[in-house]
Amino acid sequence: MTETVVQKYGGSSVADVPKLERVADRVIATAKQGRRVCVVVSAMGRTTDDLIRLAKQISDSPPRRELDMLLSTGERITMALLAMAIQKRGFEAISFTGSQSGIITNDRHSGAHIIEVRPIRIQDELERGRIVIVAGFQGMSYRREITTLGRGGSDTTAVALAAALGASCEICSDVDGVYTADPRIVSEAHRLDSISYEEMQELAEHGAKVLNAQAVEWARRSGIHIYARATHAEGVGTRVGNEGSGREACGVATATGLVRLHLKGRSVELGAALAEGEVPLWQLTDDGTTATALFGVENLPDWAGFSRALRDRFGAELEVVENLAAVSVVGTALGSAQLPAQAIQEAGRLGAKIVAIDTSPLRITVLVHPSDAPGLARALHAAFIAAG
Amino acid sequence: MTETVVQKYGGSSVADVPKLERVADRVIATAKQGRRVCVVVSAMGRTTDDLIRLAKQISDSPPRRELDMLLSTGERITMALLAMAIQKRGFEAISFTGSQSGIITNDRHSGAHIIEVRPIRIQDELERGRIVIVAGFQGMSYRREITTLGRGGSDTTAVALAAALGASCEICSDVDGVYTADPRIVSEAHRLDSISYEEMQELAEHGAKVLNAQAVEWARRSGIHIYARATHAEGVGTRVGNEGSGREACGVATATGLVRLHLKGRSVELGAALAEGEVPLWQLTDDGTTATALFGVENLPDWAGFSRALRDRFGAELEVVENLAAVSVVGTALGSAQLPAQAIQEAGRLGAKIVAIDTSPLRITVLVHPSDAPGLARALHAAFIAAG
Repeated sequence: MTETVVQKYGGSSVADVPKLERVADRVIATAKQGRRVCVVVSAMGRTTDDLIRLAKQISDSPPRRELDMLLSTGERITMALLAMAIQKRGFEAISFTGSQSGIITNDRHSGAHIIEVRPIRIQDELERGRIVIVAGFQGMSYRREITTLGRGGSDTTAVALAAALGASCEICSDVDGVYTADPRIVSEAHRLDSISYEEMQELAEHGAKVLNAQAVEWARRSGIHIYARATHAEGVGTRVGNEGSGREACGVATATGLVRLHLKGRSVELGAALAEGEVPLWQLTDDGTTATALFGVENLPDWAGFSRALRDRFGAELEVVENLAAVSVVGTALGSAQLPAQAIQEAGRLGAKIVAIDTSPLRITVLVHPSDAPGLARALHAAFIAAG
Repeated sequence: MTETVVQKYGGSSVADVPKLERVADRVIATAKQGRRVCVVVSAMGRTTDDLIRLAKQISDSPPRRELDMLLSTGERITMALLAMAIQKRGFEAISFTGSQSGIITNDRHSGAHIIEVRPIRIQDELERGRIVIVAGFQGMSYRREITTLGRGGSDTTAVALAAALGASCEICSDVDGVYTADPRIVSEAHRLDSISYEEMQELAEHGAKVLNAQAVEWARRSGIHIYARATHAEGVGTRVGNEGSGREACGVATATGLVRLHLKGRSVELGAALAEGEVPLWQLTDDGTTATALFGVENLPDWAGFSRALRDRFGAELEVVENLAAVSVVGTALGSAQLPAQAIQEAGRLGAKIVAIDTSPLRITVLVHPSDAPGLARALHAAFIAAG
């Protein structure tokens, strides 16, 4: 049977027509190798941000169903143009929306989860020898409503489609794989040849933007590999699979825009309120007297409005600390009791004030003020990765 | 039963967020009168042209299916933003794509015709007291493909929906009704209180842009009235129905971008070739020796490519005259043999060279070079309308 590959191209790989035409050439090169190609595309460049800005001109908290209607147009523009570019080069291509691709989601607008993939039309067209282009980031709920999957959702579209099609999955972007840290922050960062699902998921959940955490989770459950590659360069990239990085610590991730809440002795109520607001929690703890919650607000549709509602509900009891950053070291051998101490030492040496520290078998996370985050990332990379 | 109204807003009425917010206020004002409101919107401002320009960067003749995918996003952006603006003002609103609205078309991409309207979801939401916003200009073919209806197609969406919902239909734009000529060309032009379907259809088919000819035809067949009104001004506008303008000549329409073909004695072959190219013919005649075809190329996806194909097929026998204009006088009493002669006299007085003249019981059309068209429009308006 002919091999099928799903290739996903991110927004900066299709930011303008010339870049999109280079993607068309790359897709055709793959098809010429005799492989069936299903392409998943993001919106061009900053299109999604531009559309959100338009919505925010009208409302601080745009209704999520309508926001999904609006945002879903971005990927549709890319997919139609890419199909045109491929046809122009003499190859048959056809584009499908999330709904036409059989991406069925739950009805949680603006942050929907894929619950089923029925790629019947895609399979038919691949069998006819056509290149299929799919709008990433979107699906259709069982209520027949257009939904979007949240930031980075196109990765999940690609992985879920690859799993359903029995295909391999390439995530193509501006970087040529998964690095031990963001090279724009840590110049010593280097590419990993392989990384395990668990390592990648920890990195993605704690700020690494190269792959989406939900997508990695889907790949793990389906047992398919993800290849993170560069769109416009050769190279093997990074393979995400069962095989790990082979390192004790595989990477440092940085996240900003975090908020920490404290509420005396009402953790159940606080948890319920945050669940209602569909807040993507990093952590919810209760030390017996005070409940503490930590989460990122970058992708919340209306943090300002939601934060007002929380203060109205809980009054002066609620303490809100905004604008925090987290630097996390991820690795399979971080269980040792000495390591958090070492992280605290590194922070101390930099003069960085530690707001909190949290450890798990796979991770040490240091919560700091954003101005301290880049320096701490470099220090922790030097101590745990470069030295490891 | 509560009265339902379909209001259509054109691209310049929703060109930016402030204009869109004024439309939201107008829609809410209608809802406050106790009427159910279904709103049909066009793409914002020049969005459709911008998207076409993007496609043309990739291909001179973009595949029509993919062009429809691309262009259908324009109205979806408007509808989502308008639904947000209405909700922001405390009223319930929901937007629907052409497909969700039950607009079923044939599969002639980029110029599809509505064959059926099944507005089940719209009816449900109107009954719940919600304002419904529909993406104009688009539908879904029975093959479940996204189609577009061609230029001015949002008018047809509005009329077809109004007919299906048993609603009245308002077409709202920058002008406050149907004028006896384009006021930008003929300053003496004045608004008509009423005009018959037949008069309006002749005007629309021969260059008047205020209403779409297919929409008027649909209204005539369904027996519903169209009210052409100003979006941002009071006034009764113009009613299109069985009752005519009450004038012998009701208007002057100007069209540009026309092409005339001559082919010796092969009218069947020429007709077939033009039908294949889905050319919207004004006229196809055969005087026994030579076939003559007249049509507008403004809305043809790829006239340059199609024209090359015609020359290849028919060789030197085919004569192509491009860039012509037509000035038409429309009226119920134009059957008199003296009137074409009077039109010829007016052209002669201006020194305008007549390329051809064509008459029907409802119309006299004078084919000229574009530079002569505005002057001839003014002269014919003065002779037939102002004097009538």
